[in-house]
Amino acid sequence: MVIVTKTDATEADVNAVVKRIEGAGLKAQVSVGERHTVIGVIGDKTVLGDIPIESMSGVDRTMPITAPFKLASREFRNEPTVIAVNDTKIGGRQVPVIAGPCAVESTEQIVTIAQQVKSAGASFIRGGAFKPRTGPYSFQGYGEEALKMLEAAKAETGLGIVTEVMTPHEVELVGEYTDMFQLGTRNMTNFYLLREVGRANKPVILKRGMSATIEEWLLAAEYILAEGNPDVILCERGIRTFETHTRNTLDLNAVPVIHELSHLPIVVDPSHGTGIRSLVCDMTKASVAAGADGLLLEVHHDPDHSMTGDGAQSLFPDQFETLMRELKPIAIAVGREM
Amino acid sequence: MVIVTKTDATEADVNAVVKRIEGAGLKAQVSVGERHTVIGVIGDKTVLGDIPIESMSGVDRTMPITAPFKLASREFRNEPTVIAVNDTKIGGRQVPVIAGPCAVESTEQIVTIAQQVKSAGASFIRGGAFKPRTGPYSFQGYGEEALKMLEAAKAETGLGIVTEVMTPHEVELVGEYTDMFQLGTRNMTNFYLLREVGRANKPVILKRGMSATIEEWLLAAEYILAEGNPDVILCERGIRTFETHTRNTLDLNAVPVIHELSHLPIVVDPSHGTGIRSLVCDMTKASVAAGADGLLLEVHHDPDHSMTGDGAQSLFPDQFETLMRELKPIAIAVGREM
Amino acid sequence: MVIVTKTDATEADVNAVVKRIEGAGLKAQVSVGERHTVIGVIGDKTVLGDIPIESMSGVDRTMPITAPFKLASREFRNEPTVIAVNDTKIGGRQVPVIAGPCAVESTEQIVTIAQQVKSAGASFIRGGAFKPRTGPYSFQGYGEEALKMLEAAKAETGLGIVTEVMTPHEVELVGEYTDMFQLGTRNMTNFYLLREVGRANKPVILKRGMSATIEEWLLAAEYILAEGNPDVILCERGIRTFETHTRNTLDLNAVPVIHELSHLPIVVDPSHGTGIRSLVCDMTKASVAAGADGLLLEVHHDPDHSMTGDGAQSLFPDQFETLMRELKPIAIAVGREM
Amino acid sequence: MVIVTKTDATEADVNAVVKRIEGAGLKAQVSVGERHTVIGVIGDKTVLGDIPIESMSGVDRTMPITAPFKLASREFRNEPTVIAVNDTKIGGRQVPVIAGPCAVESTEQIVTIAQQVKSAGASFIRGGAFKPRTGPYSFQGYGEEALKMLEAAKAETGLGIVTEVMTPHEVELVGEYTDMFQLGTRNMTNFYLLREVGRANKPVILKRGMSATIEEWLLAAEYILAEGNPDVILCERGIRTFETHTRNTLDLNAVPVIHELSHLPIVVDPSHGTGIRSLVCDMTKASVAAGADGLLLEVHHDPDHSMTGDGAQSLFPDQFETLMRELKPIAIAVGREM
Repeated sequence: MVIVTKTDATEADVNAVVKRIEGAGLKAQVSVGERHTVIGVIGDKTVLGDIPIESMSGVDRTMPITAPFKLASREFRNEPTVIAVNDTKIGGRQVPVIAGPCAVESTEQIVTIAQQVKSAGASFIRGGAFKPRTGPYSFQGYGEEALKMLEAAKAETGLGIVTEVMTPHEVELVGEYTDMFQLGTRNMTNFYLLREVGRANKPVILKRGMSATIEEWLLAAEYILAEGNPDVILCERGIRTFETHTRNTLDLNAVPVIHELSHLPIVVDPSHGTGIRSLVCDMTKASVAAGADGLLLEVHHDPDHSMTGDGAQSLFPDQFETLMRELKPIAIAVGREM
Repeated sequence: MVIVTKTDATEADVNAVVKRIEGAGLKAQVSVGERHTVIGVIGDKTVLGDIPIESMSGVDRTMPITAPFKLASREFRNEPTVIAVNDTKIGGRQVPVIAGPCAVESTEQIVTIAQQVKSAGASFIRGGAFKPRTGPYSFQGYGEEALKMLEAAKAETGLGIVTEVMTPHEVELVGEYTDMFQLGTRNMTNFYLLREVGRANKPVILKRGMSATIEEWLLAAEYILAEGNPDVILCERGIRTFETHTRNTLDLNAVPVIHELSHLPIVVDPSHGTGIRSLVCDMTKASVAAGADGLLLEVHHDPDHSMTGDGAQSLFPDQFETLMRELKPIAIAVGREM
Repeated sequence: MVIVTKTDATEADVNAVVKRIEGAGLKAQVSVGERHTVIGVIGDKTVLGDIPIESMSGVDRTMPITAPFKLASREFRNEPTVIAVNDTKIGGRQVPVIAGPCAVESTEQIVTIAQQVKSAGASFIRGGAFKPRTGPYSFQGYGEEALKMLEAAKAETGLGIVTEVMTPHEVELVGEYTDMFQLGTRNMTNFYLLREVGRANKPVILKRGMSATIEEWLLAAEYILAEGNPDVILCERGIRTFETHTRNTLDLNAVPVIHELSHLPIVVDPSHGTGIRSLVCDMTKASVAAGADGLLLEVHHDPDHSMTGDGAQSLFPDQFETLMRELKPIAIAVGREM
Repeated sequence: MVIVTKTDATEADVNAVVKRIEGAGLKAQVSVGERHTVIGVIGDKTVLGDIPIESMSGVDRTMPITAPFKLASREFRNEPTVIAVNDTKIGGRQVPVIAGPCAVESTEQIVTIAQQVKSAGASFIRGGAFKPRTGPYSFQGYGEEALKMLEAAKAETGLGIVTEVMTPHEVELVGEYTDMFQLGTRNMTNFYLLREVGRANKPVILKRGMSATIEEWLLAAEYILAEGNPDVILCERGIRTFETHTRNTLDLNAVPVIHELSHLPIVVDPSHGTGIRSLVCDMTKASVAAGADGLLLEVHHDPDHSMTGDGAQSLFPDQFETLMRELKPIAIAVGREM
């Protein structure tokens, strides 16, 4: 950490800061500039984390030097983390696909879609059993009943299950059915939930909060890792910006950034990242080209009768099948395979 | 709701949409324009909520006409909601003040600050027992022990208690101590928590999510109201924008907007809304002038030794006292009193 | 400036950076941390401005210590700049008001409004002669003809004139009529225009770009100051955020921030800052309470027949008059007067 | 346009609005809902553009149905616009590349880089002669001298020239040298400049404003088209969001969106869209996969000694060459060629 003083800071102010740093067992290095004095702090920054240096007299601001996440960082582990689920590896050469409807609506629906996405090459079936909805009057999912429908789809197709868990006390229940937990954008800062899945024994797909910086996202991953669960998969799903034509702004920059900062795999969800069916295929191709380690796609065989408004961003099964074929040469071009 | 068709929509497309609307028991009114056909939907829109009209063939987009929240709306209840807690009324002529440190650190600390803010005119002591922190290595609060310290401060001063609850299963515990629940910005979309405090028998201060639109915020309030708890107080605490000089951008526009759209009271938190001590007093004055129904302010007698980084935005007790005095004529000028 | 190296930077990398700094006549101070080496640069940072340090091998990033603006900074001039125009002082104890319609539409219109706002206490009449419009098919202003109408309004009322200039070659023409130039939000980065008004001999109201940081805004002011015109008045008019209910998010935090960083006066435009008539009065009060040095308000006696869409945010003359009265006690409460 | 009334609007209010619409020669269609009355307007909406309907009594808000741009729209022209410059076609099957340094620094520099990018497959050399800089103390470009250096590079390599024009009165001068004008992000709303290049006889690359919506961007294009210049190429270069790790957030969603809304070609600038050299290649691949009609890339043979800070986002010539090779299969996979 670097501490910058105000132009009118006194020597006593600087000394007080230095004393505080040294009191925490760290080393301080003072550079006197023309207007500002800069105090460098050397040692384990986490010790300083909760000391409100910025509140001290004469201090203008502090600037972090090292990233505040550790277990998630490339510095902690330089090799990419590869997560094996059933026969699929996430984070390796393959780019696995998780596909399915927004919500599980019936056994027939989820089995039908599972068969279709399986035959097109998907590795996982996704579908919401517990649905986070902006308003209380919207369909909130069929809960455990829906988990059983997913189980039926898995039995039928062999696809792994991905489904969302929304609150700590349902982690156990959802864990009985799912192969990977999904944590939604609205729960990226639900810290109790992060901790609870951190204690579970299954991979976790952690969606980026809709206004989370990449650093905050990695800190959310750190909550899970710190509890002992090493299998965190980040999911870029679009961020909130001023643009209103699309539902979200898909931030593909995040893909190479995460690959630089972290060893964790990152998958992309172009369905939520655009919110518009006609944009999904182009943005899926862009995701693979940017280096995504996997894809999350909404597919529905009858989106006009889906039970959530998200039908408008779901691909039809035949679109999905065509897309899967078109992705292959792009994956190969970037050293991957579908 | 108004449905706009694509320019190449066929008559069959329009008829299918109309049939769908009528099938839901609503009335459709078709206007054929030069390029687009517009279909107005008349009746209870919530019936339509989960029908994915946008997914239907020939549909370009849908545009809501009525707000998706009901119980929170001015249309549902035209009179402002006034919430009485102990001897204080929130939403009436008075502008009550909730003050205290970011986190409860010791009995001595919280009692000292409670006495200071009480003598300056505050009605509630605030302080975090359970702290939502961006990273797992930061101080997370003393939990129930801290609740007991708040109780001691209340016993000593008579101030009501405001403290945050972070997860559904702690609502009961926190409710044994607090006079008002606080729901933090990171939990505005923690829907299980919203529901749980909706079933509790205490007022809830609902902070705006850092990237929540006003409509989404009112929908979060709707979750609480829909469970039967009518005592929701909204709290503007700054939103996330591109500006980096301040920690957040305090959106005071939200104050008169909420007063137009809703009967619920709105309080303002200029401490988080700026993140910088030297800006807090000016923005507190602005909040009262904008019509805030209350204030949430961080005050610490020794911020340099506070246990969270938020010391940098805490007022010193003497600043707080001066501020309280300076607010009086502004409150009077806008027809209120401190 | 502080330079942070990558964790894998070599000693040779660090030496090359140091050599580069010293080659520019500056001093480098190296602190070797556990993971990163930090190199502090001492001396006149502007020398470094165009050296792409971040491009050098082993460099992770650079962090500025001193603000990149000089003439606009408090460090350059500690006393607030007070700008006298006719009999009005901007930046002193008084909070002058600039009021009028979005666009000048006729002599009758502008004279009528000028008389009304004058009698309510305004010091300047504003009105667009040259209008920046998002699309080419909207009314673009009556140009010089409108300037003459403003002149007539001035002759009739004695009010000073404020009107916008949009391009360098019209600075001279507009300058023949106006008492203060206005530079609009869409022209904050029109650097030729900034320079041209910097060479003119009249005060300039510089509106904040709709997505400009405070630092960029002060750098735009610096362009004007650097050409020799010391009379720059900053104008906060709302920024672009994700919120869609209001036209813009009025960033009142900017008022105390500018007062800390700069000696230049700052006025606020709550009309554009909200875009909704019913919000303007509350936000004007908030602006004065936050410490605004002046106000820019849209007033129209017949907004339903105004020639731009901005009628929806214009106050009626009687609302303006009431507002002016209601502002007085707030101004006094913050040590100012209307 | 659809007009929504307030819940308390009277019949007289509705009648006044209808009368106003009919007075403008348009047709009004009234739907009385349970809470709101909706008035549809049929006819040429541009007639209504400047009538401040929202200001009228009883009106809550207006909602546009048709896009406000015409000449730029797919509805005006359904076939993609293909722009031929020298031997290169932009908007067709080929994905041409414009490459070069941020600023032209010397004849040797620009000729060297031109030769390198030419041999790697670029079609145009880019380089700034007039540089828009955030602050007045940064290097502002060598002006006409630099234009001559570009001419030398063209003579040497046969590459077309792309360079920025910043102000109307330099359009003629720059036009004597350049093959395509570039309008920078800071000038997207410089309406005089848009008009001036609209009267020139050369293609214009119009960069998206850093906080411009797609609709505003197309309206800026409309300014150029409306003056008679049909050859507008849109350029996505990243937008401003809350994310601070990258310089901008590259909004690749804009590529398929523009292809849906407009017939104009869209190129992508991953150099500014990321601001970080190590991210550029991945994001260039993503751009091609998303359907970009061309690329704008910064390349510098000696970025450590470049004269602007943008060296940090410039590719080295060998990186550029490798990238050009790696793009080929991706282009083919999406039905294009490099």
